[in-house]
Amino acid sequence: MSHATETSRDRLALCLLVEPGDPRLPELLAAHEPGRLVSAIRGGRGIPGLTVPQAWGERAHDLDQRLAQCLDRAGRNNLRWIVPGDPEWPARLDDLDHVDPLHGTTGAPLGLWLRGTGDLAELTARSVAIVGARSCTTYGAECASDLGADLTDAGWTVVSGAAYGIDACAHRGALAMAGPTVAVLACGADIDYPRSHSSLLGRIAEEGLVISEQPPGQVPMRPRFLSRNRIIAALSAGTVVVEAAVRSGSLNTLHRADQLGRVTMALPGPVTSVASGGAHAAVRDGRAVLVTNGREVLQELRGLGAEEPVAPVALTELDRLPAAARTTLDGLDWLAVRSMAQIARDVGLTAREVRAALALLERRELVARQGEGWVLLRRADTA
Amino acid sequence: MSHATETSRDRLALCLLVEPGDPRLPELLAAHEPGRLVSAIRGGRGIPGLTVPQAWGERAHDLDQRLAQCLDRAGRNNLRWIVPGDPEWPARLDDLDHVDPLHGTTGAPLGLWLRGTGDLAELTARSVAIVGARSCTTYGAECASDLGADLTDAGWTVVSGAAYGIDACAHRGALAMAGPTVAVLACGADIDYPRSHSSLLGRIAEEGLVISEQPPGQVPMRPRFLSRNRIIAALSAGTVVVEAAVRSGSLNTLHRADQLGRVTMALPGPVTSVASGGAHAAVRDGRAVLVTNGREVLQELRGLGAEEPVAPVALTELDRLPAAARTTLDGLDWLAVRSMAQIARDVGLTAREVRAALALLERRELVARQGEGWVLLRRADTA
Repeated sequence: MSHATETSRDRLALCLLVEPGDPRLPELLAAHEPGRLVSAIRGGRGIPGLTVPQAWGERAHDLDQRLAQCLDRAGRNNLRWIVPGDPEWPARLDDLDHVDPLHGTTGAPLGLWLRGTGDLAELTARSVAIVGARSCTTYGAECASDLGADLTDAGWTVVSGAAYGIDACAHRGALAMAGPTVAVLACGADIDYPRSHSSLLGRIAEEGLVISEQPPGQVPMRPRFLSRNRIIAALSAGTVVVEAAVRSGSLNTLHRADQLGRVTMALPGPVTSVASGGAHAAVRDGRAVLVTNGREVLQELRGLGAEEPVAPVALTELDRLPAAARTTLDGLDWLAVRSMAQIARDVGLTAREVRAALALLERRELVARQGEGWVLLRRADTA
Repeated sequence: MSHATETSRDRLALCLLVEPGDPRLPELLAAHEPGRLVSAIRGGRGIPGLTVPQAWGERAHDLDQRLAQCLDRAGRNNLRWIVPGDPEWPARLDDLDHVDPLHGTTGAPLGLWLRGTGDLAELTARSVAIVGARSCTTYGAECASDLGADLTDAGWTVVSGAAYGIDACAHRGALAMAGPTVAVLACGADIDYPRSHSSLLGRIAEEGLVISEQPPGQVPMRPRFLSRNRIIAALSAGTVVVEAAVRSGSLNTLHRADQLGRVTMALPGPVTSVASGGAHAAVRDGRAVLVTNGREVLQELRGLGAEEPVAPVALTELDRLPAAARTTLDGLDWLAVRSMAQIARDVGLTAREVRAALALLERRELVARQGEGWVLLRRADTA
């Protein structure tokens, strides 16, 4: 067994002994190999800096059997296990090793179980979390879904928790644009929770990933939601809260994102709606920037993605455009207003050609005038 | 004629020669007595630092006649004229002499025409401007009216422009609490503009003041609205924008308030409503603090009023309370959360008496628990 395989296996075992997110783990792992920790816990021996807690020791009694069950369950459900150092491991998660516990949890996950076809590192290189109330209003649902769609359309991956309400709407908005999205669960990645989101989770796994630090088969419990929230915050370049009452758990995700130095954003709503109370309070307190649409989210995230988006999948609409119009599109930007002269210079067309092309593109609602210049519209028609 | 009377008369004459808000006025008045300027303009002579503009000279031809008409009209409409130095003159207005022109207008007014029973200096010592879209939504209307009522109830004077939409709702909210409010017009204070607000303006004059820097009889014109906005911003300790589209005139008032170092606030709304676009943009750009209700406005204004509010007018509801409950109310605050122990200590009741009183007051919805303590509720029932 190679060292990497051994480490991966040891981390998996550790996951069955110590609750993922345990705030003692980062320091222990900085000082000891995972295998050393597993032996110490199994042997009931202390190691420097650690007297093995009773609960850990008790879990060690049937470790081999639980490990076998876990691997069996993972195999049957097509889950794969990744650990730090694996190519698919998102470097951002390691930031969690350097922040204080929040609600008794911190640290990078010991590893992650993945269900689905996506590559986690690739998907989260340009990713943004959208979180909010389970009991959202139709207003919040609409906003989350629009935001999910617009950010997906701009080449960003939406990360959320697949919960009722805002989470589900954000994922659905992404899926509606035929984009990948990442759901981080508080239970095993093989468990459809909430149950009624079974087909949503299936679609997410088809297009992106359903992930969890919890071993397969683990049920969701309250502390695991808080622990899960840290992964949502850490995976993403920024977090947007869409609707959250004043004591909502999604504010916990926002708080964690803030602690990690991520961009924190909140979408306002009617002041008469308690569902937006937490979002408004976050803006008032300076804990979040107000954003009202996908473009504003992108403005805040600017420069935080791994790279500029590659050209979106070929759109039938675009294929039907004259060559000059397609060339002109290359000179436009989502975020920056560009003048006709700039566009002409950059794409090597005459001002006259660009003017005609912009008129056509504007009629097709692919670009829009803004001030003295032009911008790409938020969403191209994928029909 | 005393010097004060003479200055007042000269400023009035100057108002008929030079459009109020003319950005050349602050410097001229700093260098010359108003009477000197009037003679210079009437005589067509230049004075140091000024070649008399043709328009000013032309207006001087029938000055005496216009002055007489103006005074006659003021007399018939019960308007009074105040100038800097008068006891009723709000010192805050003079800040306008020290800021750059915005939209071609600046400077403290030459004087103000007042219609109504209020004392302007007193009314505006603790005042807040509420401004917003003429074509507001029902959501905006409700918010403006609630805000007007809550701020009035807290002892603050609502200042606005008596326009359709947000302005009118803010004034009506204030009047509904039987509080005074101040309307600043872009036309003469004797003119009911808009015409359909005739009875609203009548009520405002009864309870507070309708004011204008424009001489009686002057009609509203576009530049006069912008000029008027500077007075709204300068009179108040802070300005709240309730609904404003991205290019709304009320953002001009907000901008002016910001320039004057006043507190600038914006109330959010649904991101799907263009009516809130300007308010959201102002928060995003850091030009306004997000506020969602009267209490938050008061938190921002804290310390900017001349003094703490005196006890509100005796309320029937309050009169019916047991003595201990009324005493307990004195120990509560709008803004600060106070513990039961603090209240008991401050009002000289036992903890047991305060506990019983708070329970009663809570049932009557006059106070509310907040965290570990208690606060006065936003609005006492005046029924």
